[in-house]
Amino acid sequence: MIIVLNPHVKEEHIERISDYLHKLNLKIHTSQGEEQTILGVIGDISCVDIEKIKGFEGVNKVIRISESYKQCSRTFNPTDTIVSIGNVPFGGKDIAIIAGPCSVENEKMIHKLAMEVKRYGAHVLRGGAFKPRSSPYTFQGLGETGLKYLRDAAFSAGIPSVSEIMTIGDIDLFYNYVDALQVGARNMQNYSLLKALGTIDKPIILKRGMSATIEEWLNAAEYIVTGGNQRVILCERGIRTYETSTRFTLDLSSVPVIKKLSHLPIIVDPSHAMGNRDLVISMARAAVAAGADGIMVEVHDDPNNALSDGPQSLYPKQFNQLMKELHIISQVIGRGVIKQ
Amino acid sequence: MIIVLNPHVKEEHIERISDYLHKLNLKIHTSQGEEQTILGVIGDISCVDIEKIKGFEGVNKVIRISESYKQCSRTFNPTDTIVSIGNVPFGGKDIAIIAGPCSVENEKMIHKLAMEVKRYGAHVLRGGAFKPRSSPYTFQGLGETGLKYLRDAAFSAGIPSVSEIMTIGDIDLFYNYVDALQVGARNMQNYSLLKALGTIDKPIILKRGMSATIEEWLNAAEYIVTGGNQRVILCERGIRTYETSTRFTLDLSSVPVIKKLSHLPIIVDPSHAMGNRDLVISMARAAVAAGADGIMVEVHDDPNNALSDGPQSLYPKQFNQLMKELHIISQVIGRGVIKQ
Amino acid sequence: MIIVLNPHVKEEHIERISDYLHKLNLKIHTSQGEEQTILGVIGDISCVDIEKIKGFEGVNKVIRISESYKQCSRTFNPTDTIVSIGNVPFGGKDIAIIAGPCSVENEKMIHKLAMEVKRYGAHVLRGGAFKPRSSPYTFQGLGETGLKYLRDAAFSAGIPSVSEIMTIGDIDLFYNYVDALQVGARNMQNYSLLKALGTIDKPIILKRGMSATIEEWLNAAEYIVTGGNQRVILCERGIRTYETSTRFTLDLSSVPVIKKLSHLPIIVDPSHAMGNRDLVISMARAAVAAGADGIMVEVHDDPNNALSDGPQSLYPKQFNQLMKELHIISQVIGRGVIKQ
Amino acid sequence: MIIVLNPHVKEEHIERISDYLHKLNLKIHTSQGEEQTILGVIGDISCVDIEKIKGFEGVNKVIRISESYKQCSRTFNPTDTIVSIGNVPFGGKDIAIIAGPCSVENEKMIHKLAMEVKRYGAHVLRGGAFKPRSSPYTFQGLGETGLKYLRDAAFSAGIPSVSEIMTIGDIDLFYNYVDALQVGARNMQNYSLLKALGTIDKPIILKRGMSATIEEWLNAAEYIVTGGNQRVILCERGIRTYETSTRFTLDLSSVPVIKKLSHLPIIVDPSHAMGNRDLVISMARAAVAAGADGIMVEVHDDPNNALSDGPQSLYPKQFNQLMKELHIISQVIGRGVIKQ
Repeated sequence: MIIVLNPHVKEEHIERISDYLHKLNLKIHTSQGEEQTILGVIGDISCVDIEKIKGFEGVNKVIRISESYKQCSRTFNPTDTIVSIGNVPFGGKDIAIIAGPCSVENEKMIHKLAMEVKRYGAHVLRGGAFKPRSSPYTFQGLGETGLKYLRDAAFSAGIPSVSEIMTIGDIDLFYNYVDALQVGARNMQNYSLLKALGTIDKPIILKRGMSATIEEWLNAAEYIVTGGNQRVILCERGIRTYETSTRFTLDLSSVPVIKKLSHLPIIVDPSHAMGNRDLVISMARAAVAAGADGIMVEVHDDPNNALSDGPQSLYPKQFNQLMKELHIISQVIGRGVIKQ
Repeated sequence: MIIVLNPHVKEEHIERISDYLHKLNLKIHTSQGEEQTILGVIGDISCVDIEKIKGFEGVNKVIRISESYKQCSRTFNPTDTIVSIGNVPFGGKDIAIIAGPCSVENEKMIHKLAMEVKRYGAHVLRGGAFKPRSSPYTFQGLGETGLKYLRDAAFSAGIPSVSEIMTIGDIDLFYNYVDALQVGARNMQNYSLLKALGTIDKPIILKRGMSATIEEWLNAAEYIVTGGNQRVILCERGIRTYETSTRFTLDLSSVPVIKKLSHLPIIVDPSHAMGNRDLVISMARAAVAAGADGIMVEVHDDPNNALSDGPQSLYPKQFNQLMKELHIISQVIGRGVIKQ
Repeated sequence: MIIVLNPHVKEEHIERISDYLHKLNLKIHTSQGEEQTILGVIGDISCVDIEKIKGFEGVNKVIRISESYKQCSRTFNPTDTIVSIGNVPFGGKDIAIIAGPCSVENEKMIHKLAMEVKRYGAHVLRGGAFKPRSSPYTFQGLGETGLKYLRDAAFSAGIPSVSEIMTIGDIDLFYNYVDALQVGARNMQNYSLLKALGTIDKPIILKRGMSATIEEWLNAAEYIVTGGNQRVILCERGIRTYETSTRFTLDLSSVPVIKKLSHLPIIVDPSHAMGNRDLVISMARAAVAAGADGIMVEVHDDPNNALSDGPQSLYPKQFNQLMKELHIISQVIGRGVIKQ
Repeated sequence: MIIVLNPHVKEEHIERISDYLHKLNLKIHTSQGEEQTILGVIGDISCVDIEKIKGFEGVNKVIRISESYKQCSRTFNPTDTIVSIGNVPFGGKDIAIIAGPCSVENEKMIHKLAMEVKRYGAHVLRGGAFKPRSSPYTFQGLGETGLKYLRDAAFSAGIPSVSEIMTIGDIDLFYNYVDALQVGARNMQNYSLLKALGTIDKPIILKRGMSATIEEWLNAAEYIVTGGNQRVILCERGIRTYETSTRFTLDLSSVPVIKKLSHLPIIVDPSHAMGNRDLVISMARAAVAAGADGIMVEVHDDPNNALSDGPQSLYPKQFNQLMKELHIISQVIGRGVIKQ
């Protein structure tokens, strides 16, 4: 941590800062220029509140050198972490595919889709039961019934399942029905929920908040990990920018950036950001080329009549074709698609 | 709602869309150009899921003309709604001021600050007890003890109080201690929480999400209002942009925009966005000049030693001076500051 | 400047960096932590190319402490600079108002408007002759004829004039016709144009680029100032964000931020960003409350038939009312509106 | 074009709008709802100024249905346009690679690099001679000498060359030295320059402005094309967002979006946005997987001592490896890399 002091800072102010830091067992190196004095702070600063330091008189700015997250950082753990959903490993040599409809609409459709995505190579079944919709007037999901249908369909197809949780009160419910719990973009900074998920022993897919920096995203993961649950899979799903030709701007550069900063697996969900199935296919290919550990993609066999997000859902045939392409692209970078 | 069809759309596709809309009791006007056919949909479309329409074959794009929120819109209610916290009205002729520290740090400090902000003209006391911090390693607030100190301090000063709630499980707790519950930016799209707050009879201050559009913000308010709780005060607190010289970009234009679109009161919290007390003062003045119904501002008598957000907290003397200035600025636009 | 080195950096790499910096007469303080070594670089680094330093092997990141601009900084010149257009001072105790139509449409209209805005208190007449339009199919301005009409109208009204220049080849033309040249947002980083404007002796109004950081904006000003032309007035006009309810997001916090960082005057143009006259009035008031040295605002006496930007142009009566309000608001912060 | 009128709009206002549109030979379909009246405007609206329509009394909002650009749209020309630099086709079945240093630093280095990138498969040599630097204190390029070195090096290697032009006055100069002229992000809306480039018969690489929407980008291309120069290659280079872990956010979804909206070729330059060579490689792969017609990438044989942008320049060996990977990825989508 670097503390840049104001020009002509008073000696007593420097002392007050130094005292504070020394109490935290931190060492200080002072660089005194003609105009500017800079304090270099050395030691474990994970417990230091930077905002507090900024509040000391005489401080011009404070710059963090090390990451604010700790256990999620590659410095803390240089080896890639593998997180398994059911028996499907995310973050290993090969890539894993999560597929299924946006929402579980009824029993029949989720069973049919589970069989189809499985047949074409998907490893995990997705399906929403509680939907975070921006308007209170739109379809909000089937709730527990949806979770039940999802579990049964996944069981029939012989693959694990994942669904999005929205509130702490539902954790037990989800725990009984699904193999992994997903935290949506809108809840990425719902710290109460993150803390609660840190106490369970199921993998968590943590989507990036729509305006979260990569650092904030890793800090959100840190909330789960420090609670005791190390099984976090990060999921890029697009960020909010000024561009309106797509719903969100899929930030694929987050994939190699996360790989550098963290040991956690990262997957990409191109469906929601693109909002159009042709674009989804292009970006799914690109995500694997960029180094993602997996893809989460929406598939629907009758997207014209989907209750949510039809236009972005792939037809099963398109999904089949995409799987073949991802197989080859992943080989270019020395990987493959996990064999079922 | 306008539905733009693809060029050379098939007749059967148009029929399928029309059938769907007619079942919802909507009327359709068809404009057939040489290249493009456009359907104008007339009637109450609040129950229509635009994403679903986009999923129909033959649809190029769907444009909503009316607002997606309903009860929060000025069309629904042309008269300004006044929401009172305790006996302090927000949204009437005069403006109201909420002040206090970022966090309740201990009993003595919140009592002292309550008296000071009251003396200089504040109408409501603020103070955080559960803090949403981006890192799990920083001060997370005093919890229930903090709420208790806040309530007692507010009582002593004879003014109502407000604090931020982060999770559904704490609603009863907050209900007992504070006069208004604040939903922070990070939870603006925590729909489970919003729905739960729609069922209580205390006013809610709903902060704008850091990347929420004004439309999404009003839709979030709609979640509370449709639950039965009409007492929502909107609070602009800055949005995320590429600019880094301030923490967030305070979007003061949201004030007149909200006034046009909605009947709900809107206040501005310049403290967190600016991160520096000199900037806070300038923007507090500007917010009132822009037409805000009130200001929420952080005040601390020893900001150098604040446990959170010291650099942006006003000294009580600065707050005193600001109050005098707001008094005059509000008069320019035919208002005033509420008399205590 | 702070150079953070990679963990386990080699001694020879540190030496290579040190040699390079010593040749530039810079001093180095080394802080060696257990994990991280940090070099504090002291001296005049304005000539150092940070990108180059980042290119040295062993470098993790480089953090600039001092500003990249120099002559425009308040460190360089602590006193407010006053820039006069004609005899109207910008940046002094009182605020100055620039008003007029978006485009000069014909001789009669600009004469009529010049007299009207003058009557209600404007100090400088604005009017576009060469228009930067995003589509090549829309009205592109009257060109030199427009400049001539503008000059004559300003002369009749007895006030100076300003218009936007788009290309180096037009500098002589503008020099002959107007009292100040405006650089639009789209050309803020047209460095060739900026350098050329650095060689003339007329004031330049430099609008902020629509996605320019405040630092980039001051660096753009630096291009003009280092060329020899110190007479730069900065103009905030809104930045691009995800919000679509206004055309751009007027970043009023740039006003106090610029005041802290630079000695140059700063004005605000709320017209283009808001795109709607009611919003323009609110934001003009707010800009003065935030501390702007002046306002630039579009006024049109027949906005329904304006050739460009009608919806955002104030009616002369509205302008008259606004001027009265700005008079009072400016007094709150110890200023006034310049007397004609 | 859809014109949404205000509720309770007066008949005379509707007539005035209708008269105006009829004069432009446009047809109007009126949809009269109970609350809202909507005019559907049919015909060639490329000459209509939407801002002007918004200025008419009674107008609530105006929504463009067709694109504002015309000749660049796929509606205008459904077949992919192939633009050749020298004899290298961009936009055909196979993809083309542009490589070389950020800046031409001296004669020897550009000759050496030209031979190296050619050996590994590059089709076009890049190199900056006039550099747009945000600070006036950094290396600004060798100017004409740089162009001369670039031409000679390209000639020796037997491949065409491209360099960035910054000002109209340099067009003749560039015309004599390079095979294609590049317009940088900062000049994408320098309309005077675009118009001038519309009159020459060399291909133009038009980079996306750092905050330009895809629509604005295509409108900028339209300025060149309507001037008579059809040979425009679009180049995605990253947009400005709130994320700071990369310099810009490379918006790879612009590739499939442009392919849908326009017939022009689109390439991707990942170097500047990423600012780090490891990330550049990942994103180059992803760009080809997303469907780009080519890649522009910075290569330097001694990046530690590059005068600009060293950290993001690939080593020649890395470039060699990347070329092999792009070969395979392009085959996945039925393409290949152009044979030299």
